[in-house]
Amino acid sequence: MIYLDNAATTLRKPPQVEQAVLDAMRTAGNPGRGAHEPTLHASRLVYAARCAMAKLLHAPDPSCIAFAANATEALNIALGGLFAPGDHIITTVCEHNSVLRPLYRLREQGLQFSFAGVDERGRLQYDDWDKLVQPNTKALVVTGASNVTGNGTDLAKAAVFAHRHGLLLIVDAAQTAGSQPIDVQALGIDVLCFTGHKALLGPQGTGGLYVRPGLSIQPLVVGGSGVHSFDEQHPAQMPTALEAGTLNVPGLAGLCAGVEWILAQGVETLCAKETALAALFYKNIRDLPNVKIYGDPEMALHAPIISLNIGDEDSARIADILWEDYSICVRAGAHCAPLMHKALGTVEQGVVRFSFSHFNTEAEVLQTAAAVQELAQEI
Amino acid sequence: MIYLDNAATTLRKPPQVEQAVLDAMRTAGNPGRGAHEPTLHASRLVYAARCAMAKLLHAPDPSCIAFAANATEALNIALGGLFAPGDHIITTVCEHNSVLRPLYRLREQGLQFSFAGVDERGRLQYDDWDKLVQPNTKALVVTGASNVTGNGTDLAKAAVFAHRHGLLLIVDAAQTAGSQPIDVQALGIDVLCFTGHKALLGPQGTGGLYVRPGLSIQPLVVGGSGVHSFDEQHPAQMPTALEAGTLNVPGLAGLCAGVEWILAQGVETLCAKETALAALFYKNIRDLPNVKIYGDPEMALHAPIISLNIGDEDSARIADILWEDYSICVRAGAHCAPLMHKALGTVEQGVVRFSFSHFNTEAEVLQTAAAVQELAQEI
Repeated sequence: MIYLDNAATTLRKPPQVEQAVLDAMRTAGNPGRGAHEPTLHASRLVYAARCAMAKLLHAPDPSCIAFAANATEALNIALGGLFAPGDHIITTVCEHNSVLRPLYRLREQGLQFSFAGVDERGRLQYDDWDKLVQPNTKALVVTGASNVTGNGTDLAKAAVFAHRHGLLLIVDAAQTAGSQPIDVQALGIDVLCFTGHKALLGPQGTGGLYVRPGLSIQPLVVGGSGVHSFDEQHPAQMPTALEAGTLNVPGLAGLCAGVEWILAQGVETLCAKETALAALFYKNIRDLPNVKIYGDPEMALHAPIISLNIGDEDSARIADILWEDYSICVRAGAHCAPLMHKALGTVEQGVVRFSFSHFNTEAEVLQTAAAVQELAQEI
Repeated sequence: MIYLDNAATTLRKPPQVEQAVLDAMRTAGNPGRGAHEPTLHASRLVYAARCAMAKLLHAPDPSCIAFAANATEALNIALGGLFAPGDHIITTVCEHNSVLRPLYRLREQGLQFSFAGVDERGRLQYDDWDKLVQPNTKALVVTGASNVTGNGTDLAKAAVFAHRHGLLLIVDAAQTAGSQPIDVQALGIDVLCFTGHKALLGPQGTGGLYVRPGLSIQPLVVGGSGVHSFDEQHPAQMPTALEAGTLNVPGLAGLCAGVEWILAQGVETLCAKETALAALFYKNIRDLPNVKIYGDPEMALHAPIISLNIGDEDSARIADILWEDYSICVRAGAHCAPLMHKALGTVEQGVVRFSFSHFNTEAEVLQTAAAVQELAQEI
């Protein structure tokens, strides 16, 4: 089996990840509730995960990291907890439904937003952004990289734009955390949402958000906090402010192991390997007749994703054949990013997405390219 | 080490649980996103967990079960998604902050609520409930059992009351799901919130809610759903309606294994064993001078929890000594249920909580009772 659906979830993880999950399940109590060894041990595991995430993102302090079940929940927390009716936001057509649907829902409460567009290859048109700014614009919400095309956002440009207009910079790093170097302080990112089960190599059920010190977000979920039990309001201090109930300690222990492994390898090293694999694939299929590639894999900032279609064939059928006849796992269809598909003209056809991990090999890539070549000739 | 903090999290699980988590981490893709084997396998694991939970709770259909990160999130979903400004709710002073804090927050948006009280032993006074009903009362929100005293709620009585007044019956089953037989259909429960990591024997990071068919709850988190990607709104069908983003598949696989183990043993059998262990502990400490026991462990419906104080000593100090000198894990302090502590007069002192699992042994219970006896003499 060749697994090239790493943008959905990474299947292969470092062995330390499952060992950490297993150890936590055997030894961890409920963190922050009590003072016996299992509960203290659980608290230490969670703290270690915060420290690892803070180090990876270059956050000033581990308390800037609040954990959530996934990037979607983190984005719902950020978008739901920062704005008031009448506020205006700039976002992009590259966004996933984890950004779009919270925004559509907030529109019912008076939030306004505008979409920054892309060119025919799905590239953001930064020069048009200034025109979108209104007096009530409060934030720029942007993905680190499109989950459809892999096209990356130039966060340095986004940061300059946001800061020039006094906007909060909120980044959906579902596709980039762990896969690309990110320095939240150097870039001046205010909120960065991540999921644990993709390039961070942790288990599903983990994720969270970095929140710049001093920025207060109204919580999405309130409840038991283990501290200040007699207050009617959930505690306001980070990270407790955005966490309620029992955390996913085994999952976070696994996430910690994944991130520490990444830190030991170096994000740049892993990023270079993934980029090289995606480029190798691209090189071997880009000139095939009957194959249409979306996005711009040659741009400087590109996630290890290559999306394509073969002729007019439904993307789901291609993915099915790749699985049935070649044991290659890819993802087809709409990828939960409707505006991107509208911009690319792939609403009906969807796209076949090949997403690479540094654990993939050149042999796997070449075998997959050969399969695409065969299909392109047959269809 | 004697672990008696099972009401916080069960530490010992059936071996099938960690095996299921491990297997899922090695084989499961992203559920419902794609059609290759890892993704289909992930979907099947999640569906099996729904089926197991539906069977345990006697739900009519697995689609009535939506998963969440924990009971707190499930309660935030239910309380946040069912009521309108001006609605009135009846709840009880036994509730955890996972119920209270969402209600206090909803009060800012015009929700009203009244508290049903308890007697000096923390027992609900059902006869007083009728007086709390108002024309705008919409629901009764009640815990299955107090996490402080272990006193159980007579859900049959609660159901008769709720149905007589046309109220929704919403149950916080954090302390009872997996530990007591629950038949949501026979009782006519509308929403039941559960956590996976306590008596359901699953890993932390799992939980969810049963929603009676036909009852619509506005979602707390919206985003990617894997289906209907081009709709601006999150899909309305259960269980997708209340789930967004990637689920905790390894955790749910573990939860499924835990629940299937419980079903194989029989909830009644496990409940009887836990009840017997708690009763044995109670019998050995109830007559100790200087020991004050809270709640009514002799009532018919009682979770396997015994809470006490020794003289005027701070509960945290007792818990510390039990850990340091006897290697016994218990929980002290305020237990995130402030109104219960006010009712019991233990706001300052807290209580020392001993909570039992069927995996505990009589020898452990007797050893712990002997430790309490020693401390009661010393302090």
